[in-house]
Amino acid sequence: MSEPIFDRLALIGLGLIGSSIAHAARRGGLAREIVGYARSSETRETAARLGFLDRVADSAAEAATDADCVILCIPVGSIGAVTAQIADAMKPGAILTDVGSVKGSVIAQAAPHLPDSIQLIPAHPIAGTEQSGPEAGFAELFDGRWCILTPLPGNDADAVARLRAFWEGLGSDVASMDAAHHDRVLAVTSHVPHLIAYSIVGTASDLETVAESEVVKYSASGFRDFTRIAASDPTMWRDVFLHNKEATLEVLGRVTEDLFALQRAIRWGDGDALFERFTETRAIRRGIVEAGQDTDRPNFGREKPPRA
Amino acid sequence: MSEPIFDRLALIGLGLIGSSIAHAARRGGLAREIVGYARSSETRETAARLGFLDRVADSAAEAATDADCVILCIPVGSIGAVTAQIADAMKPGAILTDVGSVKGSVIAQAAPHLPDSIQLIPAHPIAGTEQSGPEAGFAELFDGRWCILTPLPGNDADAVARLRAFWEGLGSDVASMDAAHHDRVLAVTSHVPHLIAYSIVGTASDLETVAESEVVKYSASGFRDFTRIAASDPTMWRDVFLHNKEATLEVLGRVTEDLFALQRAIRWGDGDALFERFTETRAIRRGIVEAGQDTDRPNFGREKPPRA
Repeated sequence: MSEPIFDRLALIGLGLIGSSIAHAARRGGLAREIVGYARSSETRETAARLGFLDRVADSAAEAATDADCVILCIPVGSIGAVTAQIADAMKPGAILTDVGSVKGSVIAQAAPHLPDSIQLIPAHPIAGTEQSGPEAGFAELFDGRWCILTPLPGNDADAVARLRAFWEGLGSDVASMDAAHHDRVLAVTSHVPHLIAYSIVGTASDLETVAESEVVKYSASGFRDFTRIAASDPTMWRDVFLHNKEATLEVLGRVTEDLFALQRAIRWGDGDALFERFTETRAIRRGIVEAGQDTDRPNFGREKPPRA
Repeated sequence: MSEPIFDRLALIGLGLIGSSIAHAARRGGLAREIVGYARSSETRETAARLGFLDRVADSAAEAATDADCVILCIPVGSIGAVTAQIADAMKPGAILTDVGSVKGSVIAQAAPHLPDSIQLIPAHPIAGTEQSGPEAGFAELFDGRWCILTPLPGNDADAVARLRAFWEGLGSDVASMDAAHHDRVLAVTSHVPHLIAYSIVGTASDLETVAESEVVKYSASGFRDFTRIAASDPTMWRDVFLHNKEATLEVLGRVTEDLFALQRAIRWGDGDALFERFTETRAIRRGIVEAGQDTDRPNFGREKPPRA
C-alpha cells in the first residue's frame, strides 16, 4: 500500500455517500485517520457501531479541526450553514470539498465563508443507490464510476491533484469541467429524470380508475424501472431542485415540449413519427452499454424474487 | 410430466415472446407438437436453426391448420390482417389468443373475421426484456410473472380453463379482467412509462448545450434507467400507442399536469411540496418489492462492467 494521501480526512455527513467514502478510503489506505460527524446522534451511534471511522466527532467544527481534507456529504441546501460552522476550525491549506449533485450553488454558498487559505474544490461522484443512511454504504460504490471535479480558477494545482488522486484511490475515473456546465449536464442525466420518475410514480398512485394495488401488481411492464430512482432520498432531491432551478426548468421545458409532440403523433395516428423516434433511442442505450456505463444483461440482470 | 394441454400449438410471430413461449411450453410438456411461423424468412431460418419448434410452417394459415391453440405473437397493429389470413384454416373449437399489450383493439380487429366456433381469448403476459427477436427468447421469461386474460362474455368456460392452465404451465400467475380495464391499467404501468422514457432519452440526445457523449458518460446518475425501456422494439411500441390511444392520452394528461405542479414548486422554491411528493413515492417502491415484483438489491442488483 502506498503512502496515504491525507493525514486526516474529515467526513461531515455519514449517509450512503459519506459512509462509502470511509469504507473505500480505508480499503485504499488513503488517509491515516478518518474522522466523521453527522447531525443526527442516531447516525453517529450507527457509525460508531459499524466502525468505519477512526473517530466520531461531536460537532462539525471538531471533525474539521486539523483535517487535511474535509468532505461535506450533506444535502446541497445545507452547504452554506455547515461551511459557516467549520470555516474557522479548518487549518490553512486544507481542502474543502463536497459530493453534491449541484455545483454552482455549492460554490455560491461556501465561498463567502472561507478565507483564501482554504482550497474549495467541489466534486461530484456519479455513484449511488436508491438506499440511504450509514448502513447503506460500501467500499465498492465508486469503482469504475465517474467523479467530476469542478475546480475554481484560484485553486492550487497541487491541491487539485491530491483530490484527484484521492478519488482515483476510491476507485473512480475523474473528469473536470466548470460548475455551470456540470449543472447543465446533470440536469439532463440526473435531475430531470428523477423529477419525471417522481412525477409518474406519484401520479400512478393517485388515479380513480386504476387501483394502486394493480399498479404494484403489474409494475413489471415498465413502471417498476421508474420506482427505483423515485425511492431516492427526499431531502437530498428537494435540495437538488431548489439549487439547480434554472437548468432543471430549461431541460424540463424541452422534455415536455417533446412529450407534447409525441402526444400529438398519438392523437393523430402518426405512426411514422413514433417509429422514427423509438428507433433513435436504441442507439443511445447501445452507447451507454458500450461505454461501460450499464450492463447489457436483459432487465439489468435483475434477479426474480423466489416463487411464493 | 402430465398430459399435454394441447395436441398442436401454433405460434405466429417468433420474436422474444413467441420464442420464449416455445421454450417454456417444451420445458413444461404443454403441447405434443409446436408449429411456428414468422413473416420474415430470416426469422424462420433462425427458429429452425435454434430448434425450439417441431416444425416451421411456410404461412400463417399453414401454421394454424389443425392447431388446438393459435397464439399471435405479433405487434398489435397486425392482428386484424393475420386473423383474416388464418380464420378459415382454423379448426372448430380451437382457441385463438395473443400476447399483445392492448386488448380492446385486439378484440375489435380479430372478432369480425372469426366464426362462432373459434374461441377468441385475448391474453397478455406481463413479461419481457428490452431485447427482441427469436434469439432473445428463453424458457424462464414467464416464471413468476403475471399473465392477464381478458375473456369474452361468449367464451366457453372449458377453453378459458385450458388457456389458464397453459399459462400456468409456462410459469405465470394468471389474472382475469375485462379488456377496457386492462387497457387502462397498462396505460399506467407500461404505456405511458415507455412513452416518457422514449421522450426523455430522445430529448437528451438533442440538446445544444450538452453533448450526447456527455449524456452517455454520466448516465449512471439516473438517465441510464430510462434507456433500458427506451430500447424496446419500435414496431411493437408504435402499435401499442396507436391502438391504446384514449387511455394513453388520458394518463399522459395526468402525468403532465402533475409535472407542471412540480415545475411550479421548483420555480417558486416550494421545498415542502417537493419533499412531500418525494416521500410518498418511496412507499410505492416498497410495495413493489414486497409484492415480489422487483428485487430489493441496490441498483436492481446490476453488475458493474469490468474495469477497462
